[in-house]
Amino acid sequence: MRFNSDLIDVLEIRAKERFTGARGSHGWDHVQRVYGLCQLIGKEENCDMTVLLASALLHDIGRHECDNGNGAKCHAKVGAKIAEEMLKQEGADPDFTGQVTHCVSTHRFRGDDAPRSIEAKVLFDADKLDSIGSVGIARAFLFSGEIGARLDDPDVNPDDVEPYGPDDTARYEFLTKLLRVKERMHTKTGKRIAEGRDKFMREFFKRLDDEISGLR
Amino acid sequence: MRFNSDLIDVLEIRAKERFTGARGSHGWDHVQRVYGLCQLIGKEENCDMTVLLASALLHDIGRHECDNGNGAKCHAKVGAKIAEEMLKQEGADPDFTGQVTHCVSTHRFRGDDAPRSIEAKVLFDADKLDSIGSVGIARAFLFSGEIGARLDDPDVNPDDVEPYGPDDTARYEFLTKLLRVKERMHTKTGKRIAEGRDKFMREFFKRLDDEISGLR
Repeated sequence: MRFNSDLIDVLEIRAKERFTGARGSHGWDHVQRVYGLCQLIGKEENCDMTVLLASALLHDIGRHECDNGNGAKCHAKVGAKIAEEMLKQEGADPDFTGQVTHCVSTHRFRGDDAPRSIEAKVLFDADKLDSIGSVGIARAFLFSGEIGARLDDPDVNPDDVEPYGPDDTARYEFLTKLLRVKERMHTKTGKRIAEGRDKFMREFFKRLDDEISGLR
Repeated sequence: MRFNSDLIDVLEIRAKERFTGARGSHGWDHVQRVYGLCQLIGKEENCDMTVLLASALLHDIGRHECDNGNGAKCHAKVGAKIAEEMLKQEGADPDFTGQVTHCVSTHRFRGDDAPRSIEAKVLFDADKLDSIGSVGIARAFLFSGEIGARLDDPDVNPDDVEPYGPDDTARYEFLTKLLRVKERMHTKTGKRIAEGRDKFMREFFKRLDDEISGLR
């Protein structure tokens, strides 16, 4: 299929509107970074770029609604519904819409549905890559600040942590999710980028331990 | 002077009380880290450890009051007043109290008063060391989240930034303050620790640029 740049332009405007007032950790700049990574990885994986980039623009469209409920609703499922409606309004054909909603609904790390299409796999990888490395560290601490969590608890017991509470620290996110991102990558390019970001993130938390203990 | 551990124990309890509900970026754990660094550096600099550790415990005691006014009041000056009153209540002699309030009132990076005594210099160094390195990065992003700032603006123009506004990002803090911490150190041990932390912090922001641009 030829790349439909008109549709992508319209979706960019419509998606961006929904990020007004969004939290910094899940703001429009996150969508832009995921979009950039999808361009990069998608070309190497021979993706349908209209499907992939539309999905990148729409993947967190349900996030803002779910943030208000502190994670009670699944933002991927909510986002897929909103995306479906939006694409219908833009006159997209049902097959295309189905491919995009599959990408949106399966991009979540904790979701039950696994991405099946190559576009869904690339979106998953791109979105997860933005949660590790230096940008992942920045987002994790920003998020902790947004929800009023502590800076750190080096002795955190993951079983005792209430999501969105004071102990929902960046280190908790690191131990329970970010450390596993690398092994969850679906594509070769995603794996390669994840290697470097994962290494740096581990170094960061090792150094944080050392600095807190006064060792350096 | 012999180390007065009873006074330190009392001050620790009284100071900690004032951090209930404090922001994570300037919470009690920050005081504990500064206390640890003061123990380390103070011994090498032959400090009066009662003066130094009392000052470490009390240095941010005015912070919570000033946070509510978004930085309008100088927390170091407010803190020195509170410390003076507290030490009077604990029966400390006026000379000791004067030494501690000098440390507290001159520990601020942006303050006009320079630290003169060796204890004030060590406290200044310890406090500033906790704002750089991995712990400084963590605190800067946490603070941005607390005040609702964006994750980043790589093209930030420092002249256009409103403190405590959306553009008061970690990178703004890095460019306008954290980059200069190393050269402001007063003690040899402070300088040595600052070298490694400064280097890591620069690497972090370099990598953040690269990751945002999709280069790694």
